Amino acid sequence: MMARTPPDTPDPAPAKTARTKTNRTDGTARTDRAASDWTDPDCPVARTLDLVGDRWSLLVIRDAMDGAASFTDFQRRTGIARNILTDRLRKLLTHGLLAQRPAPSGRRQEYVLTDAGRDLFPVILTLRQWGERHAFALGESHSVLLDRHGTPVPDLTPVGADGALLNSDTTHVQRAA
Amino acid sequence: MMARTPPDTPDPAPAKTARTKTNRTDGTARTDRAASDWTDPDCPVARTLDLVGDRWSLLVIRDAMDGAASFTDFQRRTGIARNILTDRLRKLLTHGLLAQRPAPSGRRQEYVLTDAGRDLFPVILTLRQWGERHAFALGESHSVLLDRHGTPVPDLTPVGADGALLNSDTTHVQRAA
Repeated sequence: MMARTPPDTPDPAPAKTARTKTNRTDGTARTDRAASDWTDPDCPVARTLDLVGDRWSLLVIRDAMDGAASFTDFQRRTGIARNILTDRLRKLLTHGLLAQRPAPSGRRQEYVLTDAGRDLFPVILTLRQWGERHAFALGESHSVLLDRHGTPVPDLTPVGADGALLNSDTTHVQRAA
Repeated sequence: MMARTPPDTPDPAPAKTARTKTNRTDGTARTDRAASDWTDPDCPVARTLDLVGDRWSLLVIRDAMDGAASFTDFQRRTGIARNILTDRLRKLLTHGLLAQRPAPSGRRQEYVLTDAGRDLFPVILTLRQWGERHAFALGESHSVLLDRHGTPVPDLTPVGADGALLNSDTTHVQRAA
């Protein structure tokens, strides 16, 4: 789990040095980096965080899932500074999490989630559900995620192959061979 | 979903200005902030990201779930710079995600997850599983999460109250009242 190259800046941007294939047609975000370009090459948690592990990237993904498509949509929803939004949209395009297509008006491009970007739904959902449980006072109002019937989405609960509830005490990480 | 105060720096640290109660005994991370201290007060996703939405905080949580307890443990596992680790441990303590207790040796303090910190397990798990699906080449080795029987943990899949699989197309966000 050791990084090959301990970072010496607060938030180095691996994307800038990674050999990233863009415009993959299969909708996956896998980037063809050398192992040493990742903070912690063997760990899937760390690789995901290298790609989307910052607040603004995940808020952009959230908003794209909620229907945002234009620069203005993203900017308006979270009040993100324009230069930061520009940077995050570029990174998400480079990593294959967003793609661009002509807007219905035909006059500009809009942003859509790729399959890999859409597949972050469980991540956004667990972030939401943790926040609902721990970041609001009793009775404090918050947005709610509803299914097509208008029913609130149930908590996502880790369960083993045998049906047992799982947590960090009942699981362990086996290092890469 | 608009922020009350659009941030003007890349990654403002809400924790520094928030009125945060420390040492909560109920293991919850809820902080008693004014609504305007949050990036997006009504959204549980955004509140969670305000608290733990950076790569290093989530890697520290990952390592604590995997048995890290001392400053050295955390430092060694990810190669995180010491000043950044000091900052993130302090924030996680302030937000009630980590607590300190005397180490078994009795000579120093160690860090343990609170109930709220442990409850981030589904977040870490979904980050891991996305990374397994999208951030590794076919056949590229990575660490694996196993249950007590040594069985890999199945993918965590969002399911509605009616049993239907859920994604961002079949759900929608209802704003706070």
